[in-house]
Amino acid sequence: MLLGIVKRESFYDICTMQHSINNHVKKHISATENDLVLFNNVLNEVTIAKGAYLLQPGHHVTEEFFVVKGCLKAYYMDNRGNKHIIQFAVENWWVGDFDAFYNEGTSSIYIEAVEDSQLLSIESSKLNKVFEKAPIFERYFRILVTEAFISQRKRILSAQEKNTQERYVEFCTSYSNIENRVANYDIANYLGVSPENLSRVRQKLKIS
Amino acid sequence: MLLGIVKRESFYDICTMQHSINNHVKKHISATENDLVLFNNVLNEVTIAKGAYLLQPGHHVTEEFFVVKGCLKAYYMDNRGNKHIIQFAVENWWVGDFDAFYNEGTSSIYIEAVEDSQLLSIESSKLNKVFEKAPIFERYFRILVTEAFISQRKRILSAQEKNTQERYVEFCTSYSNIENRVANYDIANYLGVSPENLSRVRQKLKIS
Repeated sequence: MLLGIVKRESFYDICTMQHSINNHVKKHISATENDLVLFNNVLNEVTIAKGAYLLQPGHHVTEEFFVVKGCLKAYYMDNRGNKHIIQFAVENWWVGDFDAFYNEGTSSIYIEAVEDSQLLSIESSKLNKVFEKAPIFERYFRILVTEAFISQRKRILSAQEKNTQERYVEFCTSYSNIENRVANYDIANYLGVSPENLSRVRQKLKIS
Repeated sequence: MLLGIVKRESFYDICTMQHSINNHVKKHISATENDLVLFNNVLNEVTIAKGAYLLQPGHHVTEEFFVVKGCLKAYYMDNRGNKHIIQFAVENWWVGDFDAFYNEGTSSIYIEAVEDSQLLSIESSKLNKVFEKAPIFERYFRILVTEAFISQRKRILSAQEKNTQERYVEFCTSYSNIENRVANYDIANYLGVSPENLSRVRQKLKIS
C-alpha cells in the first residue's frame, strides 16, 4: 500500500539511466569499466508518479535513491503537525533517509515526488558488497557525503546570517533551475522564511 | 603570530597518542597493522594551550585535527559580530574547517582551545596519499563524515522541534561529560537558547 504507486519499471531505457549514473560517478572518481559494470548491476529502476511517496515514517529503509529525471522533496512533520522541508532532489542528486539507511532503521521522514520521477535505487546490503569488490566506491560516497555535510553546514550558517534575498539566490545556485519546478511555499519552508517575504524577493529579482 | 602558542611537541608520549587514534580507527574499520603504521606516520603532534586558536578566519587550511586529550570549540562570527558555536570537540573527535580543508581554501571559522589540548593533525596532501596506499581509510572517513552529517541533521531537526530540556539532554548524550567542561553560555549558544533558560533547565535536572 505504502509504495503502491511506485513501479519497478522505467520510462527511460536502462542505457540512458546507466549513462546518467555513470557520468555522475566519473565526475567524482576514476572508476574502471569493470567497477561501473559491478555498480550498475546492483542498481534497480524505480518510477514514481507525481504526488506519490517514496518513503513515509515507519517504513523500513533498505535503499537510497539517485534521481535520473524528476524532482522530489524530503520533509518531516514535527509533533505539532508542522512540515519542515529538509531537502529537494533533482537530476543527479541522491536522496533517502540517510540516518535510517545507514543504521538499518525505519524512516522518520517523508519523501514525496514533486514531478513524475525516474530513479535508480541501491540496497544497503548490495552497496556493502560493492564496497568490498570495488573499494573505489568508498571514495565516491565519501566525497558525496562530505559535500552534503558542507552544504548542510552552509545552510545552517546562512539561516543565521543572511537575508531572504541572499538565501534565495544561494538556493537557486545550489538547486539550479529548481525555482520554477517547486511551489513558492515549499521553497519558503526550506529557507525558513514566510511565503509572502519570499514572493516579494522573487518579484524584486524578476524586475531588476 | 596566529598560531604562536601552538607547539609541535606533546605532553603525551607518541605511543599514548597512537594508541588513542588507532583505537578510534579500529572501532570503525578493520585495518591491518601495516595500514595503521602508514597512517600513524603521516600524523603530527600538536599541543595547544587553553584560550589559544588552532584556526582563525583567513588562515589557509591544510590540516584537520583529532583530539587525543582536551576540549575545543569551533565557531564563526557573523557580520553583526554575533558568535555562533558550530561544534565542540573532545577526546576522539575530529575537528577542523572541513569546507576549507576539502576545498583547499581559507578558514571562515575560529577553533579555540577550551582546555590545554593534545591533538594529532593530518595534512590534506598526506591524507590523499594514505587513501591511495591504504584505501580502507576511505571507509574510515566515509563513516565519520556520514555520522557527522546525520548528527548535524538531527541537530537541525531538534532545534525546530524539541524544547530546551530535551535538547540539553540530547547534547549531554552526544558530548558525554562535556557539560562540566564548557561554560553555560557556550552550551546555550550551541543549542540556540538563552543562558538563563539553560540555567533553569540545568538546575531543574540537578534537583530531579
